[in-house]
Amino acid sequence: MLSKNTIKHLQSLKQNKFRDEFRQFVAEGDKLVTELLSGYFNIIEIFAVNEWLATHKIANHISVTEVSPAELERISALTTPNMVVALLEIPPSQNTDLSIFDKLILMLDEIKDPGNLGTIIRIADWFGISTIICSDHTVDVYNPKVVQATMGSIARVNVQYTDLKDFLEAVPKSIPVYGTLLNGENIYTQELSRNGIVLIGNESKGISDDLLPFITQKLLIPSYNVNNGNKAESLNASIATAIVCAEFTRRIF
Amino acid sequence: MLSKNTIKHLQSLKQNKFRDEFRQFVAEGDKLVTELLSGYFNIIEIFAVNEWLATHKIANHISVTEVSPAELERISALTTPNMVVALLEIPPSQNTDLSIFDKLILMLDEIKDPGNLGTIIRIADWFGISTIICSDHTVDVYNPKVVQATMGSIARVNVQYTDLKDFLEAVPKSIPVYGTLLNGENIYTQELSRNGIVLIGNESKGISDDLLPFITQKLLIPSYNVNNGNKAESLNASIATAIVCAEFTRRIF
Repeated sequence: MLSKNTIKHLQSLKQNKFRDEFRQFVAEGDKLVTELLSGYFNIIEIFAVNEWLATHKIANHISVTEVSPAELERISALTTPNMVVALLEIPPSQNTDLSIFDKLILMLDEIKDPGNLGTIIRIADWFGISTIICSDHTVDVYNPKVVQATMGSIARVNVQYTDLKDFLEAVPKSIPVYGTLLNGENIYTQELSRNGIVLIGNESKGISDDLLPFITQKLLIPSYNVNNGNKAESLNASIATAIVCAEFTRRIF
Repeated sequence: MLSKNTIKHLQSLKQNKFRDEFRQFVAEGDKLVTELLSGYFNIIEIFAVNEWLATHKIANHISVTEVSPAELERISALTTPNMVVALLEIPPSQNTDLSIFDKLILMLDEIKDPGNLGTIIRIADWFGISTIICSDHTVDVYNPKVVQATMGSIARVNVQYTDLKDFLEAVPKSIPVYGTLLNGENIYTQELSRNGIVLIGNESKGISDDLLPFITQKLLIPSYNVNNGNKAESLNASIATAIVCAEFTRRIF
């Protein structure tokens, strides 16, 4: 049986300010929560229907509350609630040290769409990229829509928020900074390093003017024109990220 | 001034059955409608705020209705209505002939998410793929969420619906059929043709069992594993489509 206060608390975590205050977030659905059970985050409480609880082993230190399907609906943010909602602790920010520059990292300049951020985290996970540095204006990684869109990859990719200009000013000059730009040069004919920063711009405005001077190599994903010059103006931010990450990875193999 | 009937009619077109009945669909927002004004679809009527009408030239044969911001809100499906809503004709299905097999085409097996279909159409447009064949269970291309997600590419890519098994049975045996599969072989070490069919499966179920026998080459986008074997289980359908299309295009250049 759920108390009104619990329902209110879980619902409040849809908002950034309450996630900040309580340092908690919500993840839901059978597949995602099952994956998080074996993982990185500290789970505070599980709210699940009987059917789910009967088939999942939950560590003793995690509180468990059985809910009815009607109660689940009240605490779920999904159109179709899926058996379980988990309340989790937001971990303290990890300190990044210089070792992150030994590999490829992603840097996101104001990605606003939760689906895009979630998808980018999933792409990073697929391609073995373990660090994403976001501008302070990028959507919060613990926003429930982001959490759901990561499909569990949120537990394997370290996502940090910072002022990108300050960050880039402190990056050693030897580290390449790749920017995806419509006025860049064909990515397929450029040398790509095994490490460095790949900077991805906002969905509609692209990369901020004050970050452009930090870019050491401009990358363009070439399009293939058939309709007398008419074609898509650009690719979605997460699509561009995927193609660039795939190309860096292809060179390593 | 909008009549109640007009509002009701525009709202009804969110549903597939009414789009089928009237053979009409809705597109909205400054950028998208401006692009469609110069294009492929027959526009029946434009509903726009004064500010938009003052800055856009609209052909004489198109009906124009000025609406107030409050009226716009009633007919818009967007969270933030954006100046204009257009009512358009669904064009008759184009007959596909054998010439489509001279180039690369996409085939979608039950893509359910409107955002994914819209994004895939935008990717196709970017990479010069002009035909997409969808299973009858794929989300409708004139669904407003698909229309918006295409960002205008809907006017440049021919999207057809059919029974994929019947279609594939009729495809000449010389045409390669590529399938993206988790048990496929590394796409980067395979020969890829300049033409053929790239088959993309459903978001969670992948490619249907009854279509698997038609695949002549199985493609895997290799992942790069760092977390002791834990990694993203798969890539989103539109992400996989993008990476595959990019790789086919890279080989052509």
